Order: sequence, then C-alpha cells, then structure tokens
Amino acid sequence: MFFEGSEKKAQIVVKDKKISLLDDITDDFWTAFVQCCNAQILSSIRNDDCKAFLLSESSLFVWHDRLLILTCGNTRLVHSVEFFIQHIGMDKIKQVIYQRKNEYFSHAQPSSFGDDIKLLGQYVMGKAYRFGELDSHHNYIFHQDNSFQADKLDKTYELLAYQISDRASEKLTTVGLTAQEIRQFLQLDKFFADFTLDDFVFDPFGYSVNAIKGKEYLTIHVTPQANSSYVSIESNINLIKIAADFLAILAPKSFDLLSFNDFDFANLTDEFIPKNYVSKSLVSEHLSNNYFVCFANYILPQKKFMQATVLDLAGENHAL
Amino acid sequence: MFFEGSEKKAQIVVKDKKISLLDDITDDFWTAFVQCCNAQILSSIRNDDCKAFLLSESSLFVWHDRLLILTCGNTRLVHSVEFFIQHIGMDKIKQVIYQRKNEYFSHAQPSSFGDDIKLLGQYVMGKAYRFGELDSHHNYIFHQDNSFQADKLDKTYELLAYQISDRASEKLTTVGLTAQEIRQFLQLDKFFADFTLDDFVFDPFGYSVNAIKGKEYLTIHVTPQANSSYVSIESNINLIKIAADFLAILAPKSFDLLSFNDFDFANLTDEFIPKNYVSKSLVSEHLSNNYFVCFANYILPQKKFMQATVLDLAGENHAL
Repeated sequence: MFFEGSEKKAQIVVKDKKISLLDDITDDFWTAFVQCCNAQILSSIRNDDCKAFLLSESSLFVWHDRLLILTCGNTRLVHSVEFFIQHIGMDKIKQVIYQRKNEYFSHAQPSSFGDDIKLLGQYVMGKAYRFGELDSHHNYIFHQDNSFQADKLDKTYELLAYQISDRASEKLTTVGLTAQEIRQFLQLDKFFADFTLDDFVFDPFGYSVNAIKGKEYLTIHVTPQANSSYVSIESNINLIKIAADFLAILAPKSFDLLSFNDFDFANLTDEFIPKNYVSKSLVSEHLSNNYFVCFANYILPQKKFMQATVLDLAGENHAL
Repeated sequence: MFFEGSEKKAQIVVKDKKISLLDDITDDFWTAFVQCCNAQILSSIRNDDCKAFLLSESSLFVWHDRLLILTCGNTRLVHSVEFFIQHIGMDKIKQVIYQRKNEYFSHAQPSSFGDDIKLLGQYVMGKAYRFGELDSHHNYIFHQDNSFQADKLDKTYELLAYQISDRASEKLTTVGLTAQEIRQFLQLDKFFADFTLDDFVFDPFGYSVNAIKGKEYLTIHVTPQANSSYVSIESNINLIKIAADFLAILAPKSFDLLSFNDFDFANLTDEFIPKNYVSKSLVSEHLSNNYFVCFANYILPQKKFMQATVLDLAGENHAL
C-alpha cells in the first residue's frame, strides 16, 4: 500500500492590527479552508496563543497573527491558500510562503510546484527557490517579495525522515497499535511532557500528532509502510538538538533538516548529527523576507547488498 | 532549459533460427518502430554483427538475434515494443526486457512504469523489480518470465552520472562545440580507438554517440545543462574498470552503476570506484531469466553550503 506522505506547506502572516486569526475567524471558515484542498478537520486543541487542528491530511496551526498548514497525500494545498486570499484579502496579509518538497510519486500529484506558483502568482508577487538537488530530496520555497521582514527570533525546524528501519516500520504498522503506544515509541514524553497533545491513529496505519504549549508547536506525521515510509517532524523548538533521539528511534536511511532563522545551523548539525550519516546536500540562503533558510540532506552509507524489491503486477501500479 | 535525459530501455531477443533482425528487417521497419515512440533515425553505422542507429532521442542497436533500444525525453518507448510484438509476433520472440529509471521530471512523463507494464502485460507474462530506493535513484526492470535463460557471458553495463561538475557542464554547453571536441573531452580515443563511431551534437547542446566493434557496443548520451545534467554510458564492455576515468572527466555529484551478469560486481566496484564516493544503495538480484543484476548508487559527500537555486518564475515551470 502506497501513500504520499510528503507535505505541501503554507505559512501566512497577517497584519495584526487588522485581524486576529485566532479570535476573529470561526471554525466554519477553517473547515471550508481545509476542504478547498480536500482535507477535513478531525479534532482540535487550543490555548490562548494557538489553536491546532488535526486534519485528515496533516495539520493546521492558527496563531493571532499567522497560520501554518501542512497537507500530504494528493491534496492541492494551493487551493486553500487561494481561498484564504480571496476571503481575507491581500490588504490584510503581510506575507505568504508556500513550500513543497519533492514527492515519492510526483507523477500521481494533481499539480506540480510550477503549476501551484503559477496560480499563486495571480495574487502574490514573489520569488522561488529550490533547496537541494533536483535528483535528490529537495524543497521548493516560494515567498511573497514585499516589505515584510521576519523577526530573527522566528525560528522553525523540519526533520524529514525517509526509509525508516524495518524495525520501526514493523512496529508502526502493527495492527491495533494505540496512540499511547506510538507516543511511547516516539518518546514524546521525553521532550514534550508539558505540551498539550492531540493525536490520531489512521486505519490501517499512519499517525498524526499536534502538540502545543503557549506559542510553541510540534507536529509529527508518520507514514510507516515499508515501501514509502516517511516521518515528518516540524516545530518551532530546536529539532537539531534532539535529532539524534528521533534518528535512534526511526533509523532512517536518509533524512532532511530544514530550518528558518537558525543562524547556527552549520555548528549545530556538526555537533548533534550522528557521524554515521553523511551530508549529500547542504544549502543555505538569505531570503529577502529576512528568513535565513538552511537545508541539509543526510544519508546512511550502505555496505551490504540488498535484494531488489519485487513489484506486485496485479497491485497498485499507479504508484510505480 | 530542462530536458529529461533519463532513458527507458528495451531489449528483445528473438529465436535466431526463425529470423535475423540484422538481415531480414528493413530500415523502413526500424523507422516505423522508432516513430511509435516519437523518435527519429538520424544516422546509422553497421558491421557484420551489429547495426547502430543514432536517434533523435538516444539509440537503437540491432544484432542478428536481438535489439536494444534506449529513448529519453518524453518518448513512450513501450509503444515501440508493442509495435515490434504486433509485427514480428510473440512466436518469434524469446525474451522481452523493459527497463526504466526514475526521471528528474516524472510528473511530465506521458506514462509511469506501472502504466507501461500494464500495457506490456497484454502480450508478455513477466516479473518486475525495483533496484534502488524509491526516494533515490532507482531502476525498474520488467522481464518476460519463460524458459529463456541468458548466457552467463552476456554482460552489459550502465554508468549513469548525475549533476556533473560545473566545469564539465560549462564545457559541454559551449556554443558551437564540435563532435570532435566532445570526443576529445570524453577521451573516447583512449578506450574506444578501434571502434566505429557515429555521433551527433544537438542544438543548442546535448551529444549522442554510438560506437561498435564486432558485437561490442558503446553508447553515450549527454544532457549537459547545469540544472538537470545527466550522462548515460552503456556498453557490453566492462565499464566498472574504466569508471574512474569517466568520473574524473565528469565529476558527478552522484552516479549509478548497473550491470547484467557481472558476477564480480562487488569486488570490482571495491577496486575501481574512487573512495571519495560513498554507496547510498547496493542491490543485487538473480532474475529467473538467468541475468544476475547489480545496482549501486554512489554520492559525493558535501562539506560546503551551496546557495539555493533561484527559479525563473517566468520560465519553464512545467519542469518544477
């Protein structure tokens, strides 16, 4: 069974004196917003600073002055961004960032990044970059090019793990696994004990969790099936410092680190990334919206020959 | 400018007492055969054992008992295979092998490997495998599953180089570069001095060469543009032993080695692949048609941060 875990991501910052996304927008709006890309709200948690929606395809976080949405599968997230722009108005929007990583099954996607930013370009003047090699894991980032300047303290991190170990894949595809067992397996108590958690176990497998504490957030999405396993972890907590713990649990054959405004990325990765991984890509760029973006892809060198993967000719060949 | 260099490949072996592909088939047939996937014959060379056609999209080699065709770009090679089967008849065919590597721009392809083997499955009972990780360079191989058993001495090699050095890319995209200059750059005289060569320089750039000597063949296809550079080298001469020479010229960030029936693959790669490359994937499999297939992907670890690639929003975004 194949599932496209790779996410599209949008961050929208609004002019805070004109609107509070947390107080002034109803859940009905967010329901319609996520429906534009064929996602649904499963549940939500909130505090005074943040509301976190768990979606049928990933997550939506809403703060007073901004939102962050990640959607996986075959969703076309740019349609939700278009809906937001049309209903809220560009005059209330300070900054739009639209991001998309390369997919496992890009040929099965309803659109390419190029298609998406062509649509966005009708509303937003911006710039676009590719972080990472075309023939390897990479992230496309489009951002509005206007007077908006990000706060240097506005940091976010992504840790994206590919081809997790057989042990982790088998554990996470166990029939009947509970959310509590997955929390334990991922050791969420260790670093996020004082966060409010909201999680969901998908049928037959797959797991999503949102966690918030004040303005801090964490979201993890697990696509555990052996052939296309993928675990994404995103947070405004420094994930580089705790990457080794996640890598020990998941033992991926490859992973990406992506950070916004971590000016110490090179030193931190040098200090905290286990030495059995080697860097395949290292990219950094100062964007004109004042985000300093770093991207690294790491791989685990192989010593042993594996058998080829037998393809099921009667099965889901659309994924091939 | 983007171009999909990655090839699809088909090898068809015929029952040699029933037909000689070299003597019994006209060029008109081969013209129609390659047109089925929107390729055209540019030129050809031949000797008593082999005829080599240079195509607008890669190459076709015809021996008495078999053919090998490689096509790149957005060709749908499986349509040529279907044409061959319909016109020659499965009763004269011993073995069909259809192979496809992952593309840079798979979303821009007219079909997926799954689509292709679904079509082939109407004519040929077979098995299919993936060599290499789904999230990295990989090769799909479909082969007919019948009584055919390959000769152990029937060896072929592929060396596929990605992201060649800036120096090599700049040289090979030089305006007005001649075929002779490219032959020199690739040092074809060094290893293939006694081969008959037929080559073509594409406009504005891109290079193909076929070379034959008796039953031996070599074909090289160069897509040199910096953003999607790709050089494929295929031969029944042992490419592992001379890989270091090509790697020194091209200095790719990543490359694949694929061999059919080289039983010493592990030792040879250990001996001949420069130690600055590390293996990301190692796969081997004995197919039921008696081919022993080995696949390895190597990468060059990166130490320095590069800048992100700026995308031209007014340009050819279909490739993004």
